[in-house]
Amino acid sequence: MVETTVDDLEPELWPDVLRAVRAAGAWDCWTTATIGRHGRPGQVLTALCTEQIRPAVVDAVFRHSTTLGVRWTRWQRATLPRTAVQIPVGPPGNEHQITVKVAVGPGGHQTAKPELADAERIAQALGWPVRQVCEAARAAYARECQTAL
Amino acid sequence: MVETTVDDLEPELWPDVLRAVRAAGAWDCWTTATIGRHGRPGQVLTALCTEQIRPAVVDAVFRHSTTLGVRWTRWQRATLPRTAVQIPVGPPGNEHQITVKVAVGPGGHQTAKPELADAERIAQALGWPVRQVCEAARAAYARECQTAL
Amino acid sequence: MVETTVDDLEPELWPDVLRAVRAAGAWDCWTTATIGRHGRPGQVLTALCTEQIRPAVVDAVFRHSTTLGVRWTRWQRATLPRTAVQIPVGPPGNEHQITVKVAVGPGGHQTAKPELADAERIAQALGWPVRQVCEAARAAYARECQTAL
Amino acid sequence: MVETTVDDLEPELWPDVLRAVRAAGAWDCWTTATIGRHGRPGQVLTALCTEQIRPAVVDAVFRHSTTLGVRWTRWQRATLPRTAVQIPVGPPGNEHQITVKVAVGPGGHQTAKPELADAERIAQALGWPVRQVCEAARAAYARECQTAL
Amino acid sequence: MVETTVDDLEPELWPDVLRAVRAAGAWDCWTTATIGRHGRPGQVLTALCTEQIRPAVVDAVFRHSTTLGVRWTRWQRATLPRTAVQIPVGPPGNEHQITVKVAVGPGGHQTAKPELADAERIAQALGWPVRQVCEAARAAYARECQTAL
Amino acid sequence: MVETTVDDLEPELWPDVLRAVRAAGAWDCWTTATIGRHGRPGQVLTALCTEQIRPAVVDAVFRHSTTLGVRWTRWQRATLPRTAVQIPVGPPGNEHQITVKVAVGPGGHQTAKPELADAERIAQALGWPVRQVCEAARAAYARECQTAL
Repeated sequence: MVETTVDDLEPELWPDVLRAVRAAGAWDCWTTATIGRHGRPGQVLTALCTEQIRPAVVDAVFRHSTTLGVRWTRWQRATLPRTAVQIPVGPPGNEHQITVKVAVGPGGHQTAKPELADAERIAQALGWPVRQVCEAARAAYARECQTAL
Repeated sequence: MVETTVDDLEPELWPDVLRAVRAAGAWDCWTTATIGRHGRPGQVLTALCTEQIRPAVVDAVFRHSTTLGVRWTRWQRATLPRTAVQIPVGPPGNEHQITVKVAVGPGGHQTAKPELADAERIAQALGWPVRQVCEAARAAYARECQTAL
Repeated sequence: MVETTVDDLEPELWPDVLRAVRAAGAWDCWTTATIGRHGRPGQVLTALCTEQIRPAVVDAVFRHSTTLGVRWTRWQRATLPRTAVQIPVGPPGNEHQITVKVAVGPGGHQTAKPELADAERIAQALGWPVRQVCEAARAAYARECQTAL
Repeated sequence: MVETTVDDLEPELWPDVLRAVRAAGAWDCWTTATIGRHGRPGQVLTALCTEQIRPAVVDAVFRHSTTLGVRWTRWQRATLPRTAVQIPVGPPGNEHQITVKVAVGPGGHQTAKPELADAERIAQALGWPVRQVCEAARAAYARECQTAL
Repeated sequence: MVETTVDDLEPELWPDVLRAVRAAGAWDCWTTATIGRHGRPGQVLTALCTEQIRPAVVDAVFRHSTTLGVRWTRWQRATLPRTAVQIPVGPPGNEHQITVKVAVGPGGHQTAKPELADAERIAQALGWPVRQVCEAARAAYARECQTAL
Repeated sequence: MVETTVDDLEPELWPDVLRAVRAAGAWDCWTTATIGRHGRPGQVLTALCTEQIRPAVVDAVFRHSTTLGVRWTRWQRATLPRTAVQIPVGPPGNEHQITVKVAVGPGGHQTAKPELADAERIAQALGWPVRQVCEAARAAYARECQTAL
């Protein structure tokens, strides 16, 4: 986990920092709003990455933000195995395939989640809200794939 | 809309304020974290209620929080018509009825949402996570009620 | 209520904006963290003031922040009457007077609150945490002034 | 410390996750609002627990949230010794015993804090705001137990 | 100002809601994290638009989010007049024109701000961080256009 | 990194805690708003310091806040080398020297940042917004020191 705390970056530049950290190879990254000394609002940037990728992430943080210091520490990590299925969504005759990620958690309970990037692409193609695409994908998955809950 | 800004209430007392405001008749209420003068973190409490209920809400805010001033203004409001259906969830032989609220939005798209209080009660009865109850309710609703998306 | 939404001010400059808005005559002001379009973190600045003071507050916001637009609307307001008493705090022989604001709410319940600026000054004089000064003031008030709870 | 970052859980399900993590044996847990890639608001869930309890906490997080990955690392910890005293609160003839936790910090300064669960129960019994119960408990403690500040 | 409070939308869908509200004609829109009843984290969506555009914004909110109720009220608004100048940024031989918005506030102080969309486009073309493009634009503006500060 | 999670400190006392932690020798410290069990809003306090300073920081946290437990862990850290230059700002005949910190990041890109404490002092002397002092310092630095971007 790589972190930095910044109170002197114009907020509108944070999306560029997150894009750069992701492009450097981090699995995930995000910012959290904070209140610093003298009441200065700030952001903590957090990125998750492997030890190999870490220098590239640190470099991206220095290049894209105004920070003068970056810190990191090691965490252990457990993940659920996941598979993916293709499910059609859309009105008859205009169906698009969406990827649904399926993970099986402890206790055997399934989590099915439409891939958001797919949903955004299909939403644009159909002129639907993204939410409607996701709901349709979940409903289709429920009808076709889930045998019992 | 009734609001007050408070920076001297011990944070753990906010749930009591929200309960009291709701009990006074507000439709909904919530708090938002802020940064005030001298860097003091605070909370803005917001409550939505009718003009008739407003004095009771103001009274509850004064009684349950430390504020010395409450403000309000009028907003107009549009709501979607909604209906409710009963859907069974749970393993065969141990099914519980959950209320699913269904609203039809502009463009004809349906929003189906399990009632959270029901889901929490059923989760406790079944020993399931609340999330699993909600997913099962949505999947059952998708199988039984939705004809086309 | 005067508001503006800003995503291009370096966060460390917000304390200056709040000081300026207060100096312009606002009763109170604060910022709230937001997420804008394209995922840009921002702040909404809110200030409460009379209609007479409003132009000065708007002017201060334009001068001290980067905003290009400020908005305002009218709210009504109810306040509790309050009085103030002087209470001594500190070790014997080194006592300082602190102002305790006392308000009587609906239902007759009293709220007693040490004046924070006093507490900060006394804390510095005694080498105490501000929290300890406030607790001592509340305890002294409880012993001397409250007849029954 | 166990953490996960989640941007695809319906927010209203977080209270169930916190209850489950606590029930699994964590000392404490909370969520923090974040802004992720593409401007997606999310929550980081953090839980504190012993190494022995950690697998149960991780399991609860997987079962009750939608996360596909959980991480953890070790922290050291210092706590203040604390004792508890019983203090009566309420009007004469209708008094209830409330637990006040007392800790002595570095420098000898006492922190006295009414137990919130007690305060909520007594507030309901007396028809008082929770805040009033806590203030009465602190005032009673100040009168009866604190000899000098 | 159009608002709605939502605690049952998967957070990752908020960017789609903001895009849709903007596409419906709102000047600006953003979300603010809140804590609702029973400790449910939520978001308030706020949009600024003219009275003419308001029905389209309300419609977009209903279509793209899960809300069942939307509210609005009127605010007045003051804006600073602004002009735009074109400034070259980039290394010699590879310069790109960036729009710098210039507003003159009360007291005559200028605010010069590079257009972020331009900066993002140029950053991609040059392989620079967006921050570097903005700084170069400000520095170039300072050298070429500001006569005295 | 030293942290504690607190939900029973009156929010207006946080600035005193941050001052005390900084006075104890921490490089930096800040708070982050959280939502705890039962929907209680809280704050996580985070402080960065060396291993030598850590006991003093922990002691300050215990003395100035209400917490009963503090935790810490070790992070590694990289910083950019920085230098400082003095730049004059202000109208002719009333110029003040401001320190501009200059750091050179990976890739050779410079970050120039006026020292905020200087800017606040000069702003007060000139009757300028702090923002204007910072902009003037950056513009002067761009004119005088930057040879090419």
